[in-house]
Amino acid sequence: MTIADLFEQGSNRAYEICVPHISIDCVVFGFHESSLKVLLLKMKGVDKWGLPGGYMKKNEDIHEAASRILKARTGAPQIFLEQFKVFSEIGRSEGDFSHLPKHFWQRQRFISIGFYALVNYEEIKPRVDKISEQCEWCNVDELPELMMDHHTIFTSALETLRKNLNNSPIGFNLLPKEFTMPQLQRLYEVILGKSLHRGNFQRKMHSYDILVKQSDSNTSNSRSPIVYSFDMAKYNEALRYGLQQNF
Amino acid sequence: MTIADLFEQGSNRAYEICVPHISIDCVVFGFHESSLKVLLLKMKGVDKWGLPGGYMKKNEDIHEAASRILKARTGAPQIFLEQFKVFSEIGRSEGDFSHLPKHFWQRQRFISIGFYALVNYEEIKPRVDKISEQCEWCNVDELPELMMDHHTIFTSALETLRKNLNNSPIGFNLLPKEFTMPQLQRLYEVILGKSLHRGNFQRKMHSYDILVKQSDSNTSNSRSPIVYSFDMAKYNEALRYGLQQNF
Repeated sequence: MTIADLFEQGSNRAYEICVPHISIDCVVFGFHESSLKVLLLKMKGVDKWGLPGGYMKKNEDIHEAASRILKARTGAPQIFLEQFKVFSEIGRSEGDFSHLPKHFWQRQRFISIGFYALVNYEEIKPRVDKISEQCEWCNVDELPELMMDHHTIFTSALETLRKNLNNSPIGFNLLPKEFTMPQLQRLYEVILGKSLHRGNFQRKMHSYDILVKQSDSNTSNSRSPIVYSFDMAKYNEALRYGLQQNF
Repeated sequence: MTIADLFEQGSNRAYEICVPHISIDCVVFGFHESSLKVLLLKMKGVDKWGLPGGYMKKNEDIHEAASRILKARTGAPQIFLEQFKVFSEIGRSEGDFSHLPKHFWQRQRFISIGFYALVNYEEIKPRVDKISEQCEWCNVDELPELMMDHHTIFTSALETLRKNLNNSPIGFNLLPKEFTMPQLQRLYEVILGKSLHRGNFQRKMHSYDILVKQSDSNTSNSRSPIVYSFDMAKYNEALRYGLQQNF
């Protein structure tokens, strides 16, 4: 029996399986047709859209729980997933389930651990489960009204992603294996929400020393754009220690 | 009655006041005599040193709880405090209190929210309370064995601080109001645990555009070093949006 089954039956048995007061919310970003997308779902019996989330089982740590929750929503077993903030405001979770009896699991005060995930849009298939009726990608600049404090959580994830652009490489999980410089620049622009200067952007990217040229740029008269991939050894090193320009 | 009183009496009443399963651990950094320090304490009846920590009351959010805990340890009401990670490994908290009865508050599984704080060493006075018998500064490269997973929490805080150096200004909370370039460089070096090139460091600092020269460097023959302070408007802007060199 899954947690979803338990909730569907309105059961209180989640207390036996999960750690009380702790929840997880995931902001899942994807990149498709030059737009940044986020995964949203609609739970049965709740009017508003929300972020995919869930609870931590007693036999899991928080990262295992977040991975399990995302796998259930996307089918993808390996996802780049990062904790970014804890959401603990008083009253943040209690309101939206006030129609339920007081002793019900959902009526607790939940401290939510926010994760963000970067996924390859092409590779994952959003899916509904027994407690949700819709699960879809949404453009980040066309978000509907979200339940609880999910808009705050989304905004905070996007701000974290923006800040991290200056210190960590990005793109491997969001772009196809081979990509052009304009595609890479477009990814940065949609995350930052602003245009970047083409020359400066290229210089900066090359200074990071994480790109490998795939096509032969020496062929004169060739009008096909240069194709790049990531040097994964250098990319992973930069993920771990920060980008080259830094201390 | 404080939470410390409750614990001293071995009482289980913490359940009435605090949210179960959630704890807070604080890594408090200070800078003194060219060394990076961290605040440690020893609880009564526990052999090992540990980080200052505590629990979240039912009428607090997690940031309020962390501020309250640090104020109790240091007397300082305003501290630069930042959430950095959640520690949730199974078994992380249960072991060190296995001498207590099973229904006791301390025997729960705690998910700990890690905060790091940067404080002015001169301004704060570490203090013991009813549950601790020692509270002292310790050089970060001379740490004793720590209780539970506190060494992991400390290491993670230091790594976060190092990573953030590349994106956020630092020093306002750690240095005196006026300081020299060598003092600033020394602060970066002790955090990074390595020497930096003097010329490169100065260029980088000036490129951030957050320093104000306090002494007159045009006086020739003057052998006194140039003194700086931070331009707080620019400093705070950089704290919020990242340092200038970035996207």
